[in-house]
Amino acid sequence: MSPRRVIGMDSGGTKLLGGVIDETLSVRDRVHRLWRGGGRREVLDLMVDAVEEARAAAPDAAAVGFGIPGLVDSGSGAVGFSTHLPLEGLPFRDLMEERLGLSVFVDNDANLAALAEQRAGAARGASHVAMLTLGTGIGGGLVLGGRLYRGAHGGAAELGHVVVDVNGPPCQGNCPNRGCLEVMASGTAIGREGAAVAEREPESALGKELLAGREITGALVTDLAHDGDPAAVGVLALIGERLGVGIASIVNAFNPEVVVIGGGVVAAGELLLEPARRVVAERALPPNRDQVRIVPAHFSDEAGMVGAGILALADGDV
Amino acid sequence: MSPRRVIGMDSGGTKLLGGVIDETLSVRDRVHRLWRGGGRREVLDLMVDAVEEARAAAPDAAAVGFGIPGLVDSGSGAVGFSTHLPLEGLPFRDLMEERLGLSVFVDNDANLAALAEQRAGAARGASHVAMLTLGTGIGGGLVLGGRLYRGAHGGAAELGHVVVDVNGPPCQGNCPNRGCLEVMASGTAIGREGAAVAEREPESALGKELLAGREITGALVTDLAHDGDPAAVGVLALIGERLGVGIASIVNAFNPEVVVIGGGVVAAGELLLEPARRVVAERALPPNRDQVRIVPAHFSDEAGMVGAGILALADGDV
Repeated sequence: MSPRRVIGMDSGGTKLLGGVIDETLSVRDRVHRLWRGGGRREVLDLMVDAVEEARAAAPDAAAVGFGIPGLVDSGSGAVGFSTHLPLEGLPFRDLMEERLGLSVFVDNDANLAALAEQRAGAARGASHVAMLTLGTGIGGGLVLGGRLYRGAHGGAAELGHVVVDVNGPPCQGNCPNRGCLEVMASGTAIGREGAAVAEREPESALGKELLAGREITGALVTDLAHDGDPAAVGVLALIGERLGVGIASIVNAFNPEVVVIGGGVVAAGELLLEPARRVVAERALPPNRDQVRIVPAHFSDEAGMVGAGILALADGDV
Repeated sequence: MSPRRVIGMDSGGTKLLGGVIDETLSVRDRVHRLWRGGGRREVLDLMVDAVEEARAAAPDAAAVGFGIPGLVDSGSGAVGFSTHLPLEGLPFRDLMEERLGLSVFVDNDANLAALAEQRAGAARGASHVAMLTLGTGIGGGLVLGGRLYRGAHGGAAELGHVVVDVNGPPCQGNCPNRGCLEVMASGTAIGREGAAVAEREPESALGKELLAGREITGALVTDLAHDGDPAAVGVLALIGERLGVGIASIVNAFNPEVVVIGGGVVAAGELLLEPARRVVAERALPPNRDQVRIVPAHFSDEAGMVGAGILALADGDV
């Protein structure tokens, strides 16, 4: 008998990534789609089309796992809320099972990324894991006691919306709060602080880029920091320290064994993680602070897809 | 056959409260002891003495549950860390079983208070519950998915040490952090802010108490607020708003159905809870903020004892 295979699909805000995943969690027959605009019908058609492409390579796959950027009721498989895709209010699982003739499992994409890191990535072997995904915003996922933690209605693990500064700047997206970790330490925040430092220090490499008319983004600050620009290094240290304050709250609340940092911002590497670890060691409670490892993610942009595969392989019981 | 009975013991920082608890969770034959100083031996002797008194009233009780103000390894029943009692490093469960000849179960006191509220108190019927105990400091407890959540090593649910203000004042006790909920919104904080307002507003009732030489404590501020002093009402509103900021982080991270507020500070009632609810409604993420109830505790100072009884009745499996 050949090993069991499933299809994992991660629906991000801009694209769909999928693949065929077996019980060893190796990924083959990847499929990619870019959203081409349109409404709910176009999005669902593109998903079905991508699944069918993967299925052609693995006709034995009996189940599909989907990661969705939104609030998912894991009991019913319905999407309660989705900022990036027009899926709000959709009985997603039932509808996809009907269209595909396959078992379908669905969960929040950040939850599935955390699951992938806990089962097979940077937090393998740990039972209590928090994950932060640093990009334009900050997503979160929690595996507690070895199980995905979703809260009462699927809304848990919004760890980017733990407050760091009660009087901080207004948060991003649909968040009505101020001073959340997301607005203080995301890639967007790196760009914003980088622009401020560039103005103050026109002689720095960062300042020269601004004078040359370039937009100061998080990615540019990170590149300049890796090239050794002290101003850019200082920006990453500031953001890393704020990240550490948020992680300290998480460490005090959850007593995790591992905090995994993923997302594009992890390109900053130790320039970001070292200040974060230092602040956690200074500010979190003993003994929690001595028991936690803060590590970069193992999976890059495939974490959600692998997690979706794990979900499907376990018949949704994760 | 008569219903099963156990003994519940809550070891606070200043006293020991115990009682005989049956499966309906009614408490009888209460016992009280005040710590009389001394070291580990005196503390353990007093515990044994109190258990024996309860046992004389209920000779059929076959198990004892203990709540301890410290870090407890629920697997081994050892105390890892205790600020208020000299129990650090003690294999508490094994030692007590040896001395009492009874089954012994032990957990953190704030965890057990949360368990009591979730199983039989203000959060009865809910599966996802966070509890904050507001007194001199702020304790925390979590019941997630219907189970007590302890984290990797028993250190979870330190919800008083979620940061509210990155640049806030140094926190209390053994906490090395700044701007934690504990230092911003505990009974101690009410007294501190009350004293500041009393200085600024000497014509207020609060100001007159200061001029008369009284110490401005949280309890005094609460009394004056209940009597209608606008200055004191303002202090509780400020503290309630900060509490709301902390609860918003908790609501975003855990998506609980209920947040229970206990401890002596709850005497402030709606003067504290109404501003907290308003801030959560304004600042926490939808839909989490619409799904959570913020309610005062049902059990007052007996929550820990009842929780210890629940722990023993369930043979530690909570």
